[in-house]
Amino acid sequence: MIDPAAIVARFVEVRARTERLAAPLSAEDQQLQAMASASPTKWHRGHTTWFFETFLLAPHGVPAEHPTWAVLFNSYYESLGPRHTRAERGLLSRPTAAEIGVWRRLVDERVLTLLDRLDGDAWSTVAPIVELGLAHEEQHQELILTDIVAAFARHPARPVYDASFPIPDRHGGAVRWIEHAGGKGTIGAPEGGATFAFDNESPRHDVWLEPFEIADRLVTVGEWTAFAADGGYETPSLWLSDGLELVRAQRLRAPAYTERDGEVVSVFGLSGDRVAHPDEPVIHLSFYEADALATWLGGRLPTEAEWEIAADHLGQRDAVAWQWTRSSYAPYPRYRPSAGAIGEYNGKFMVNQLVLRGGSDCTPPGHTRPTYRNFWYPDTRFQRTGLRLARDPSRGRSS
Amino acid sequence: MIDPAAIVARFVEVRARTERLAAPLSAEDQQLQAMASASPTKWHRGHTTWFFETFLLAPHGVPAEHPTWAVLFNSYYESLGPRHTRAERGLLSRPTAAEIGVWRRLVDERVLTLLDRLDGDAWSTVAPIVELGLAHEEQHQELILTDIVAAFARHPARPVYDASFPIPDRHGGAVRWIEHAGGKGTIGAPEGGATFAFDNESPRHDVWLEPFEIADRLVTVGEWTAFAADGGYETPSLWLSDGLELVRAQRLRAPAYTERDGEVVSVFGLSGDRVAHPDEPVIHLSFYEADALATWLGGRLPTEAEWEIAADHLGQRDAVAWQWTRSSYAPYPRYRPSAGAIGEYNGKFMVNQLVLRGGSDCTPPGHTRPTYRNFWYPDTRFQRTGLRLARDPSRGRSS
Amino acid sequence: MIDPAAIVARFVEVRARTERLAAPLSAEDQQLQAMASASPTKWHRGHTTWFFETFLLAPHGVPAEHPTWAVLFNSYYESLGPRHTRAERGLLSRPTAAEIGVWRRLVDERVLTLLDRLDGDAWSTVAPIVELGLAHEEQHQELILTDIVAAFARHPARPVYDASFPIPDRHGGAVRWIEHAGGKGTIGAPEGGATFAFDNESPRHDVWLEPFEIADRLVTVGEWTAFAADGGYETPSLWLSDGLELVRAQRLRAPAYTERDGEVVSVFGLSGDRVAHPDEPVIHLSFYEADALATWLGGRLPTEAEWEIAADHLGQRDAVAWQWTRSSYAPYPRYRPSAGAIGEYNGKFMVNQLVLRGGSDCTPPGHTRPTYRNFWYPDTRFQRTGLRLARDPSRGRSS
Amino acid sequence: MIDPAAIVARFVEVRARTERLAAPLSAEDQQLQAMASASPTKWHRGHTTWFFETFLLAPHGVPAEHPTWAVLFNSYYESLGPRHTRAERGLLSRPTAAEIGVWRRLVDERVLTLLDRLDGDAWSTVAPIVELGLAHEEQHQELILTDIVAAFARHPARPVYDASFPIPDRHGGAVRWIEHAGGKGTIGAPEGGATFAFDNESPRHDVWLEPFEIADRLVTVGEWTAFAADGGYETPSLWLSDGLELVRAQRLRAPAYTERDGEVVSVFGLSGDRVAHPDEPVIHLSFYEADALATWLGGRLPTEAEWEIAADHLGQRDAVAWQWTRSSYAPYPRYRPSAGAIGEYNGKFMVNQLVLRGGSDCTPPGHTRPTYRNFWYPDTRFQRTGLRLARDPSRGRSS
Repeated sequence: MIDPAAIVARFVEVRARTERLAAPLSAEDQQLQAMASASPTKWHRGHTTWFFETFLLAPHGVPAEHPTWAVLFNSYYESLGPRHTRAERGLLSRPTAAEIGVWRRLVDERVLTLLDRLDGDAWSTVAPIVELGLAHEEQHQELILTDIVAAFARHPARPVYDASFPIPDRHGGAVRWIEHAGGKGTIGAPEGGATFAFDNESPRHDVWLEPFEIADRLVTVGEWTAFAADGGYETPSLWLSDGLELVRAQRLRAPAYTERDGEVVSVFGLSGDRVAHPDEPVIHLSFYEADALATWLGGRLPTEAEWEIAADHLGQRDAVAWQWTRSSYAPYPRYRPSAGAIGEYNGKFMVNQLVLRGGSDCTPPGHTRPTYRNFWYPDTRFQRTGLRLARDPSRGRSS
Repeated sequence: MIDPAAIVARFVEVRARTERLAAPLSAEDQQLQAMASASPTKWHRGHTTWFFETFLLAPHGVPAEHPTWAVLFNSYYESLGPRHTRAERGLLSRPTAAEIGVWRRLVDERVLTLLDRLDGDAWSTVAPIVELGLAHEEQHQELILTDIVAAFARHPARPVYDASFPIPDRHGGAVRWIEHAGGKGTIGAPEGGATFAFDNESPRHDVWLEPFEIADRLVTVGEWTAFAADGGYETPSLWLSDGLELVRAQRLRAPAYTERDGEVVSVFGLSGDRVAHPDEPVIHLSFYEADALATWLGGRLPTEAEWEIAADHLGQRDAVAWQWTRSSYAPYPRYRPSAGAIGEYNGKFMVNQLVLRGGSDCTPPGHTRPTYRNFWYPDTRFQRTGLRLARDPSRGRSS
Repeated sequence: MIDPAAIVARFVEVRARTERLAAPLSAEDQQLQAMASASPTKWHRGHTTWFFETFLLAPHGVPAEHPTWAVLFNSYYESLGPRHTRAERGLLSRPTAAEIGVWRRLVDERVLTLLDRLDGDAWSTVAPIVELGLAHEEQHQELILTDIVAAFARHPARPVYDASFPIPDRHGGAVRWIEHAGGKGTIGAPEGGATFAFDNESPRHDVWLEPFEIADRLVTVGEWTAFAADGGYETPSLWLSDGLELVRAQRLRAPAYTERDGEVVSVFGLSGDRVAHPDEPVIHLSFYEADALATWLGGRLPTEAEWEIAADHLGQRDAVAWQWTRSSYAPYPRYRPSAGAIGEYNGKFMVNQLVLRGGSDCTPPGHTRPTYRNFWYPDTRFQRTGLRLARDPSRGRSS
Repeated sequence: MIDPAAIVARFVEVRARTERLAAPLSAEDQQLQAMASASPTKWHRGHTTWFFETFLLAPHGVPAEHPTWAVLFNSYYESLGPRHTRAERGLLSRPTAAEIGVWRRLVDERVLTLLDRLDGDAWSTVAPIVELGLAHEEQHQELILTDIVAAFARHPARPVYDASFPIPDRHGGAVRWIEHAGGKGTIGAPEGGATFAFDNESPRHDVWLEPFEIADRLVTVGEWTAFAADGGYETPSLWLSDGLELVRAQRLRAPAYTERDGEVVSVFGLSGDRVAHPDEPVIHLSFYEADALATWLGGRLPTEAEWEIAADHLGQRDAVAWQWTRSSYAPYPRYRPSAGAIGEYNGKFMVNQLVLRGGSDCTPPGHTRPTYRNFWYPDTRFQRTGLRLARDPSRGRSS
């Protein structure tokens, strides 16, 4: 079942990909922290390295190379001791980006040496840690991209990360509604399944659904433009109360990094400023904006169970944006966090956040899956967050 | 089906009860607003009166007695025009408490005159509005009590609202676990049922439950004392991340209005300061505290579906405290708000809050029911909020 | 030198005047606290009473009538023990306004009884305390008026305190410049002089002045209107840096309680909303606005020494507004606060505030004098604050 | 009078010194901004270069090398157009430190070429601009040092800027009081004098002083230790009211970067953490702390006039710390800012700040002089701020 060679190859590949993502960024760029909920590139590179040193090397007797760095790169594991204040990661000029590069190579060598010497039995305990570490690193790869956009957006010169970063596919036209008859269904990842999944995706369990319909594509920039032009941001009846308060307090009139001038919508992103096509998915919406937009369009956000049950029919072409659901991020029935520090990974965040499903064009290839649960606070806009409509079947609707 | 005489009698009774609750309070007391989420007694008396004038009298051609007061007493109905800032209700010295009393009596007379002249057909549309208005007023009766405690708690002299306000019953001793086999169940209130229910309790719908067990009593002051004495507030592994941050930022070590000195716990409430008995339910907990306390006790919070399915077996004696569930406040499947301004009543609050079930010793008699959904933000502590444990059956447990 | 009968008469008169000022206000009005730097009417009535009980009656063996009230009505005397949080005075529903009235009458009787029994020697120590207490109470009389305007301005109905409150005299027309040759001058009140003065007005001391000119009237509403219409609020070169930041952050475009529509300027005050005449003094300006307006008019604010030296020539007709000076509130040379708690009265505020000279139409008659130093933070706008221009003589100016 | 060769030599020397100060810092270090009132090293290097490009090269027809950088490096000149938000200078990853180095060399060459070609008449207008630019750059040299300490102090590893940075001389022992008889004196720098001075040091003007005494040395760490050990931070009567509020809100118990453990005082600075000797001057005090400490020691802060009048007698050996005076930063009589953008340099900050006199061990050699007026807000602690005592002569004191 465990394929050591495949794990080693994946380790090499994922670790190298992180460095490729950081390569276009100067030492100064890599230190930018635009806000408390984003982190510097350099920090992501260090934190993911600390993860392997702490959870893989240390238990096998390999001490930390820089013991004083633990306090800097421990992100949230309370049980592992004190942590540096999250909001001040941008003040960590030391270690430098170059020093972190050296450290990464050293840890990679030590991990590969360790894996090389493992006997078969040991793999059964080591493989899940490596898998978790790599899935964790892939999450930070996505954050490297979203966080640098947040930082560059604050710079008057609007720097370009990669002028050739792909522009989203277009998916306009009439929505096709995928119908589901409701009833008992099963969602979630089996514990100890063949494919890696985070603990928050388990246990696999039954749910009961009402009949529902779900759209075959994401909501587009053009649909958002019509909403905005129709006074959507000024129409209280479309909004959840907390969303309305936020919109008013911050005078919001467009998604993050987005400006609208009549029909022309410009967006700032990895390739710099550009004009968005009406048929590409709208992103950088808060949950509140997504909910109001769905209401204006005559639909609603799906629940995460509806999304997952219908996932086989949704196709893969829309992987440009994470899709807000109306489901709060909560434990599945009988969920138990893993023992020890690793158990802090997901469970302690299960309040005040909403689940997003799907994946985005910043998500590493192969990282996500139908059971995957992403989660953010409802006011989050710096992630690549959009929506897909759902609706309740009308009784008299001919189908 | 509709019993006009019973409705009239209930109208008279509920309206009079509000005035009885306000009677012990001076004009100055009635103007106190301890914080943005609480309101002055006087305002509650005015707002509930505005409700009948706006939703019952006005549609029947009876104009508002004081048109300029609408802006003061409209609490959150965006579709009814501008509203006075919620956080500044304590600055409304005018109208005075006495003037509001005069207004209440006038509106009562006008409502009774209107009801007296209704013919049979008209009752079918009027009765639901009166029922809603009275249920709404009962909610504000509870708030009159919780809000005055919040205000008096800020006064150095610790004023007493009612020295004879009943002290909670005691329910200590070993927990008896009520077992449920799981499977398909049905929750919620039927739309258009014989008994009044708020729109957020509908539609009645099916859910799928895993097997669970739920305690026959609330968690007690003595159990909380043991948790606190064991360092519960300083143990990160017990806490949700947002809760831990709050506890640290505000240096919380006890529920609101509560102080602990070793085994002695004193609480401020409607009867002033008193020592709590270890066997009475612990209240004034935030959701975070309730969640951490449940974890420390080896259990968890129930979902609202578990609570409701088990409600018949829980008994009524514990109605001293609202009970936090782990369910986020969200729409039931196929939920649709009522049309018009009244539709703003519940739906627009369906994010960022948690559901509480049960009722408290400040809840008017007969106001709550098994399908009733109360909801508050997770950091709320000024309400009478406690918890009941649930747990997952262990596989090997003999039952 | 000491005239006991005159002191007794003044005591009766000042104490009665406070009650007359409060008389038009309901119990609810008297509890209003619009902001942390304002206080409820009721509190002013209580605090001034506490002053006599603490500094006059107690040292003569008359105990406090309500010892638990000390914590409520001690405003800032650190050496007298704990104090209630200033920002929460509006939450003090108890004692009621009526109870404070009873207390005032009781304390008045006790003071009069005490004064009646004093022998001649005792008067020499008692008279200064009574004088200080009455001057202190007069300051709070002015605050009763300014603070109720701050509270009523927040009420949508714009309540009227006194419809017949006098409207300011008009003083437009060309400025007449009063010239002063500079050189050595003397300012301040002599210590132990025949006339009462606060400790911050002493010691009387020499200053050296450059030649200066000072205007014979205050700056008017019409001049401010021209400044505003000329884009004064948007012209950075007119502003001190901190002032510009404030204006931008708060989007200020007019003095407090003031709105401008072209040439028409409306102001809210004790007599409600009214249109201001272009020739009346402009008030409710922050120091920053006064400074910018002076610069735009080609002048500058006077120093407090210039103002005082020229005071004899300024006339009394402009007593509608306190006049900002460019002098920071600081101790005069050789200043020493009084010993004991009374010494906290003025000295500890000698940083971060600017001196104002003159007096306003809310100042009790006879309360102020040429050496009087009022002081407020530079962003203060709820007081009746205006300005008088000064300027340096131009070399070539024919005079 | 003007010595072109000397000016050129000084230009080369000052510009080179800035680069030497930055040399020990990595690209990442140079981007650190610890707080809004501090700036990154890199930014100081760029801003001082922008100054010469804007005020010297541009008026002589040499266009800006990077026109888009003006918005980044214009610090506060409102009249020169939009500016980047001060608090976000740490987010300016571009231009890089290396790019700024290139720019500096280019601008230096252009300035030297320009100066080389100037004829004699032109020097009379150019020399003052170069002088101002170099004095301005020296101010930023000091800030480079103070700001990097502020940043490094936030790093858990406490980085060392320069292990050999000199430790302050020791000056304990009994204070010798320098006496002054008072009377008329003259302070300030003459306009157009032979020595460079900032505009805020002029006009030279007369003042009138009371007799005073001033200490021959700064207050020491040992004296501060005794103050702290005596409960100085908890004794309200020692404090100005605003200072007490700050101390309580921030729970201050020591100067910035300072910790006390009994008699042992450790300080963080350019050479890292070290134990301070009781006889070295105490620094990193706010104005409030300096004022309270002076009061506890039985003295007071001097006025800036007292300090300047006595300067000839104070010696130079105490130049380790800027010395708080009790004088608010205000315009001297007849002060007029320079015309144009350069006029924004000093005048617009003349409110809310206090004057400091002297100089510190971070001040460039030769930069300061007896008329020099430094100024900071009273809560500032990250600068090298200490105090020297003054006192009023006692009448009966034998001298």
